[in-house]
Formats: sequence, C-alpha cells, structure tokens
Amino acid sequence: MTSYQQTIDHIKTYTAKITQAIPETMRAFYALSRASSTAGALDTKTKELMALAIGVTSHCQGCIAFHTRAALQAGASPAEIMEALSVAIAMGGGPALMYASYAVAAMEEFQNLTE
Amino acid sequence: MTSYQQTIDHIKTYTAKITQAIPETMRAFYALSRASSTAGALDTKTKELMALAIGVTSHCQGCIAFHTRAALQAGASPAEIMEALSVAIAMGGGPALMYASYAVAAMEEFQNLTE
Amino acid sequence: MTSYQQTIDHIKTYTAKITQAIPETMRAFYALSRASSTAGALDTKTKELMALAIGVTSHCQGCIAFHTRAALQAGASPAEIMEALSVAIAMGGGPALMYASYAVAAMEEFQNLTE
Amino acid sequence: MTSYQQTIDHIKTYTAKITQAIPETMRAFYALSRASSTAGALDTKTKELMALAIGVTSHCQGCIAFHTRAALQAGASPAEIMEALSVAIAMGGGPALMYASYAVAAMEEFQNLTE
Amino acid sequence: MTSYQQTIDHIKTYTAKITQAIPETMRAFYALSRASSTAGALDTKTKELMALAIGVTSHCQGCIAFHTRAALQAGASPAEIMEALSVAIAMGGGPALMYASYAVAAMEEFQNLTE
Amino acid sequence: MTSYQQTIDHIKTYTAKITQAIPETMRAFYALSRASSTAGALDTKTKELMALAIGVTSHCQGCIAFHTRAALQAGASPAEIMEALSVAIAMGGGPALMYASYAVAAMEEFQNLTE
Repeated sequence: MTSYQQTIDHIKTYTAKITQAIPETMRAFYALSRASSTAGALDTKTKELMALAIGVTSHCQGCIAFHTRAALQAGASPAEIMEALSVAIAMGGGPALMYASYAVAAMEEFQNLTE
Repeated sequence: MTSYQQTIDHIKTYTAKITQAIPETMRAFYALSRASSTAGALDTKTKELMALAIGVTSHCQGCIAFHTRAALQAGASPAEIMEALSVAIAMGGGPALMYASYAVAAMEEFQNLTE
Repeated sequence: MTSYQQTIDHIKTYTAKITQAIPETMRAFYALSRASSTAGALDTKTKELMALAIGVTSHCQGCIAFHTRAALQAGASPAEIMEALSVAIAMGGGPALMYASYAVAAMEEFQNLTE
Repeated sequence: MTSYQQTIDHIKTYTAKITQAIPETMRAFYALSRASSTAGALDTKTKELMALAIGVTSHCQGCIAFHTRAALQAGASPAEIMEALSVAIAMGGGPALMYASYAVAAMEEFQNLTE
Repeated sequence: MTSYQQTIDHIKTYTAKITQAIPETMRAFYALSRASSTAGALDTKTKELMALAIGVTSHCQGCIAFHTRAALQAGASPAEIMEALSVAIAMGGGPALMYASYAVAAMEEFQNLTE
Repeated sequence: MTSYQQTIDHIKTYTAKITQAIPETMRAFYALSRASSTAGALDTKTKELMALAIGVTSHCQGCIAFHTRAALQAGASPAEIMEALSVAIAMGGGPALMYASYAVAAMEEFQNLTE
C-alpha cells in the first residue's frame, strides 16, 4: 500500500512540472494557500485542521496526506485531529467516515516519522 | 430575496416532519451533530467554523445559514469567520468564493438580529 | 418562494432550447434517463427513489423537484420517500438533511396537486 | 491491486481507532447508519442498493466496498446491483461509470467469497 | 425570480467585503483567476467555456452567472456555449442538465443585455 | 503503482460486464459520450480538455486516465493540457491541484507510449 509520504512525494514531483509549465497560476495558488493558512484571527493549527476536514469531505487522498502532516507540524494533537474528523463525519456522513479513516492512517504514519 | 433566517425556518418546518416520519434516523443525526459540535479538545466555536467552511465547499446554502448563526452564537468574531472562509476559498476555488459571499451575507443578517 | 412545479417548468423551458441546439446529446441523455428508470430487476418506483436520494446528496434542487414528482407518480408512498431520504442523510450528513427537507416540501406540494 | 475486502479491513482498523477517540460521535454515526438501513417501508436490500448508488455518485471506493457487500448480504442479485448502477450512471455521468465499474469488481470479489 | 445580473451584483457586494477583511487571500485568488483565464496555449474564450462547464458540474449558480457572462464577453457563440454544456451533461448526468438549463437562462439574459 | 493504462484496462474490463447486463443504459451512455465529444462548434480536442478539467474537479482518477489519453489522441499539446489544468485549479482549489498532478503523470505516461 502506498504510504502517505509517498503520496506527497508523488504529487510534489508532478506539481513541480505544473509550476514549470504554468508558473503564474502556481505562484498565485501558493500565495492563496499561504494566505489562507497564515496565523491571523485563527492560528495555523486551526486552519490546517479545517483544511483537513474539507479534504475529508471532498474525498481527496492527496489533501488528507498534505493537511494531516501540516496539522501535526502546526502542533495539532491526535485528539484535536480526531475532533476535526468528527465535524467532517457529521457534515459528510458515511463517505466522510471512510476518508476520516485514511486521515487516521496518515496521522499514525506521520507521527511515527516525527517521533 | 429569502433571508437566511427564513431559510432556517423553512428547513426546520420540514425537518420536523422528517423527525415525525423517521424518528430514529433523526435522533441519531442530532446525536451525531451534537457530538461533533460539543467542546472537547476543540471548542464549539472552532467546530462551528469548520462546519461553516465545509458548508461553503459543499455548496450548501442551508448549511451556511445554520452554521454561520451557530458560529456567531458560539462567539466567533467576523474576523474569525472571514479566515474560516479563507481556508474554504483555498480548498474550494472559485465556487467556494461564491458561497463564501453568501456566508458573509448571512453573517451580516445574523449580526444585525443579535445587536 | 418558487414552487417546485415552477422549478420544473423553468428547467423544461431551457432544456427544450438545449434540445434544439444539441439534439443528439439530448436524445442520448433522454435514452439514458429512460433506460435507467424503466422497470427491470428493480421497479420504476425504486429507481426513482434512488434518483431522488442521489439528487439530495448531490445538492440539486432541480433533481429533487423532478424525482420527487416521478417517485410519487410511480406510486411511492410518503413513508417510502422518507426512508429514501433516511439513506441520503446517512450517506450525506448535515448538507443532505438540508436538501432532504426540500424533498419533503416538494413531496407536499406534488401530493396536494394530485389529490 | 488492493482487494475490496482489504479496503474494508483497512478502513475498519482505523474506524476502530476513531471509535476509541471520539466514542459519542461514532455511536451516533452507527445509530444513524443502522436506522437508515433497517427494514421499514423499504427493505434493507433496497436501502443498501441506494447507499451503493450514492457511493458511486460520491466517488467513494470505501463506500462501494461496504455497500456492495451489504447489498449482496441483504440478498441483492447481480441484476439488481447492475440496475442500481444504471441509476447512478444516469445521475452521475462519466465519472459515475468509472466508479460503477469498481462496484462490479467488488461484486465479483464478494460473490466469489460467498460461493 | 432573481436575474443572473442580480446574482453577480449580490456576490460582488459581499466579495468586496471579503476583500476588505482578508486582502491577501483575495489578491491571490484574483491572481489565480486571472492567470487561469489569460490567453496562452488556449484562448480566453475556451478557458471561460471550461470554467462554465465546471460551474455546471459543480452545481454552482454563481459560477454559472459569472462564467456565462465572461464566455459571451470573450466572444463565445451560443452554439459554443451549448457544446460546452454538452460536455458538462456527459460528465455530470442528470444534475448537470438541471444546471445547464440555468446556463442557458443566463446566456439569454446576458445576450439581451448586450444586444 | 498502477499505471494509467492499467486503470483504463481495469475499468474497461468491468464496463464490458455492465454493457452485457444493462445494454440499453450503456448504449445510451456511449451515445451521450460520443455526441458530447464529436466536433461541432467546438473541436474534439477542446471538448476532451474540458472533460479532463471536469474529471480533475470531480476527483475522478478513471476520468483523468481516459480523458488525458483522449485529449492527446485528439492532438492536445502538453501546454494546452497544462492550461486546462490551470482552469481546473482556479475552479477547484487545493484538491484540484492534487488531481491535476495525476493528470500530468497520466500525460507523461501516455506521451511515452505514443512516442
């Protein structure tokens, strides 16, 4: 089974090629991504947990990989991640539970890497 | 134009009928909704902002009405709501911006009601 | 508030223009729609309830209007419609409940018309 | 290639951990899932076929694994599953056909296991 | 019934407030939007037709309003818009047809305004 | 890692079985697919790029495999594919970027096959 780190590496390989081909689009996308995750009225941890919850309800494995890792890096605890998944499950029903389970798998993988 | 309060009232009229018809489903749904928004590792305000962000990326007007109001009631400031919308826009692109604008309209309406 | 019958009429006005402009696409779409709703191993009522449940989880008001009416015309009872909505709520969470409430509103409107 | 049984096992491993972390959310989710699939005005087979069709239009591999198996266990015939997929294809277009093909793969796998 | 021009005006009123509150997010979003619609290997007309087709399959009325108008402004003919809708219908099934009908209504409204 | 050609082959194996089981649905689906991609006011290349962009915003790996290959076969250049992805990213945000990266991986695979 592909690890979540491999998923991130795979996506990064190809987004690098997208950046070469359409640099203005990607520059703007990264500016948007950065603007939305920078601490302001809400801190980065909260914003990454939100992005993770949206990744779960959007059925997006790549998003789950990136935002689970980013949430952990921003200091989110497993309990906080689980409660973000709780919101995703209430808002996304059965399919969200399926993807929430992947977020937990990603969380365990990235916790092991950082311990 | 229908107000967001009218949207909530309209939905409540019909969810009451759903509750009469399929009470066990609705009892479980409300338990799920309550479990996911009760303060724990994350507080209710944060969870309502997450639910709002998911409502925006899910293109769901009714969700925007309910969760904007609930976020305000849980003490979310306009700045916090705007930053939750920021995450939704980065995760949902152009369509999320359209629905984020509805969340701002709902926020203004519910702020006026509570002032 | 726009009635569900008006929603259907509005959509029909414009799908008629789509049919004029791209007749082969629309001929194929109607053949697909008919093939998927014709009684076979499953009867038409069951198939229309499925289409309604998908309309609810797809957040599609127009679909809810058309397939609620078609389910009633195929003989679906209010209890059967409610249980189809139950499946949609479990599979779609909070947003599905919002749209399920619209399906109940549509059901009441079309029941009144046919009584 | 990962089997659908492995997909189910993988998801179950991690949903068990979610249940440990957020037991009230999961208790409510399972109550919702059970309430929506219990026989009432519609039988369990019909409800599982509906859930499968929604899993297909929601682009959710995990849902396809669980609800294809549950539909078979509730007595759904291959012809009935195929007609549920037919509704999903009409409601979900090309992407639904892609996921319908996974449902057929899952159906074959689970039929072999139960023969 | 709300006109599509009113939909655009309503959204613009509130996106202006979003821009005031989170200017960096919105600056980046507009840069992304501009980068993706500027003529390059594909011309602006083609890109706006793509954005319209995505707006239709995303069930986003606001997107349909903005991108139908932008496609017309970029020189798209009714026949070209109809064929973009054809792709959306094949990729989005029944729900896409509902939203395609709104795109035709928007097209007629904006054609009348520009004649 | 599964190649995109293998994804296509896997899906074709099972859509062939769907065709056997529900031939009228599939005949209509293929007619719809053909009608929507045949050159008219827009050429096939443009339509396949649109379908690809929708596949990306719909988070559909199978669609990405089929429509990347079809776009290349219809004469789309890498630059044109990249700009179609640009529209998808602006309309779909972060999750669309994840799936856009898969489209680039598919593009490279199919270019290698045809060189």
